[in-house]
Amino acid sequence: MTVKVVVNGYGTIGKRVADAVALQPDMEVVGVAKTRPNFEARMALEKGFPLYILAGRESDFKNAGMEINGTVEDMLEAGDVVVDCTPGHIGAGNKALYDSVGIKAMWQGGEDHELAGVSFNAHSNYDEAFGCDYARVVSCNTTGLSRVISTLDNAFGVGKVRATLCRRSADPGDVKKGPINAIIPELKMPSHHGPDVVTVLSNVDIDTVAIKVPTTLMHLHIVNMDLLQECTSDDVVDALDENSRIRLIGDGISSTAEIMELARDMNRPRSDMWENCVWEKSVNVSKDGLYLFQAIHQESDVIPENVDCIRAMMEVERDSAKSIAKTNKAMGF
Amino acid sequence: MTVKVVVNGYGTIGKRVADAVALQPDMEVVGVAKTRPNFEARMALEKGFPLYILAGRESDFKNAGMEINGTVEDMLEAGDVVVDCTPGHIGAGNKALYDSVGIKAMWQGGEDHELAGVSFNAHSNYDEAFGCDYARVVSCNTTGLSRVISTLDNAFGVGKVRATLCRRSADPGDVKKGPINAIIPELKMPSHHGPDVVTVLSNVDIDTVAIKVPTTLMHLHIVNMDLLQECTSDDVVDALDENSRIRLIGDGISSTAEIMELARDMNRPRSDMWENCVWEKSVNVSKDGLYLFQAIHQESDVIPENVDCIRAMMEVERDSAKSIAKTNKAMGF
Repeated sequence: MTVKVVVNGYGTIGKRVADAVALQPDMEVVGVAKTRPNFEARMALEKGFPLYILAGRESDFKNAGMEINGTVEDMLEAGDVVVDCTPGHIGAGNKALYDSVGIKAMWQGGEDHELAGVSFNAHSNYDEAFGCDYARVVSCNTTGLSRVISTLDNAFGVGKVRATLCRRSADPGDVKKGPINAIIPELKMPSHHGPDVVTVLSNVDIDTVAIKVPTTLMHLHIVNMDLLQECTSDDVVDALDENSRIRLIGDGISSTAEIMELARDMNRPRSDMWENCVWEKSVNVSKDGLYLFQAIHQESDVIPENVDCIRAMMEVERDSAKSIAKTNKAMGF
Repeated sequence: MTVKVVVNGYGTIGKRVADAVALQPDMEVVGVAKTRPNFEARMALEKGFPLYILAGRESDFKNAGMEINGTVEDMLEAGDVVVDCTPGHIGAGNKALYDSVGIKAMWQGGEDHELAGVSFNAHSNYDEAFGCDYARVVSCNTTGLSRVISTLDNAFGVGKVRATLCRRSADPGDVKKGPINAIIPELKMPSHHGPDVVTVLSNVDIDTVAIKVPTTLMHLHIVNMDLLQECTSDDVVDALDENSRIRLIGDGISSTAEIMELARDMNRPRSDMWENCVWEKSVNVSKDGLYLFQAIHQESDVIPENVDCIRAMMEVERDSAKSIAKTNKAMGF
């Protein structure tokens, strides 16, 4: 079976999902939808993705000399599952449309858990999404936390988790306003990330707080965790190393900027870093529990999770480990 | 008694200490020492501070048209106490000189605790420095943590403290290299700040971790603390409000940049913010203990502490509360 995937919203996440899906042996991209005829729409055409648009915008695309295949509604008829990559809180409004067409639907972390009922992370709860009609792939930060917590919970058992999120202010391609030279605390405590992790890992006791800093490159998490079973820092490093979506960082890499440079040197598409990047030297087990630092590439860590979520919802692969291996291999991890 | 104070090293901290001392009714600045004839040396002369220099640099200052009073050695003869504000780890090398002259000496947080034997914070351990020959005023971050911890320890008792320090990369006047667009984790865990707090508050159980971010304005601390006595967020706010060197921040101030703007609007000298700035809305007591965010002005929070340390060492004032009130009033808190 080849799953026919359509992507609604071809921006930061959508374009990456389309590329990753196109690489899978058991999936194909039968359409991507865009609201404006910008450089991303042109790139979609150059890649050979059938381009669909918001009804009423035909003349915009015609004036830009871009050939279109129809409207979003037309696109949905062609797919088995739609991956909604529209901006946060826009996707919820599309549910009625997806229901009317009878297509399975996936959303991103910008939507509420309740919209889909299932919040997804491949290593944490693949089975929960198996055969579902709706699912939500959690945000980059929640994905990053879920990967580390579920890995260590399996290895040692996890008690209280305290995480401090140092957030990038905007994506590199953004030209929105952001702090040029300031630190902004998120005064709502806990930040929304902790409760979001609980939508994936329902038994975890987690507190999160967050600040924003003037950088565009990556988020950085400072994670403190009580482990239930006695273990050493080396044991934790070994357990993390078993997870194919966690990369241990060393070799003199001292900052998020150098991790992004590493991704460029690896010839990753768009210089993306799909894995959590955990500084090996930061893994520290003491009487105060485990501490570690991880960097999270906000634009790309959720992409392989989207691919696995498609497989789970479409019942293409029953075993999460097999789906993860297939996704990784096709993407070139 | 008027204490004769000399300041060795007239840079970021030294110039502020000299100004603050000059404002005190019971102290006078009888000399400041500088190694190079830069704009700060010229400002010292314009303010009327007797200028002393490193022996051998006479022609540099003469060529710059600056009148000098003698060498550092000459200056030390004129003082009752020297405040060493030379760069970190330079000050230790001056101890033998201070001993040979028989002058009491104070260092800053860049030196090790062992050099002085007493590490000082006015609200925390004024008595410990009373009559001492040596003391060390701890760093801006340690000062900021000590103020909050000692205040809450007095009010409610403090158990485990976990603090995450988001550090500015350089001071605003610095043109050194720093990260332009990156987050740098401090891979040594715990960071040096926790052990440094223990040099002031010996009974506190504290863990600290630190990261550096591309800003020059202030540090930001994320503090989690177990309180031994039951209390509400409002109780904590009230206790913090009692400390004259902790400022509660509200009124729509959402970042460190706006706190610095507030200091400018207050017409503070050099736009300094001497107090810890605690966001009132961030004060949050729950089953997980207390959380709060505070911003620390790295260039100035230690200045009033230096003044109080002089009073303690010179036995000018036995009561810490009276010294603190005197310092604050003279500086214009």
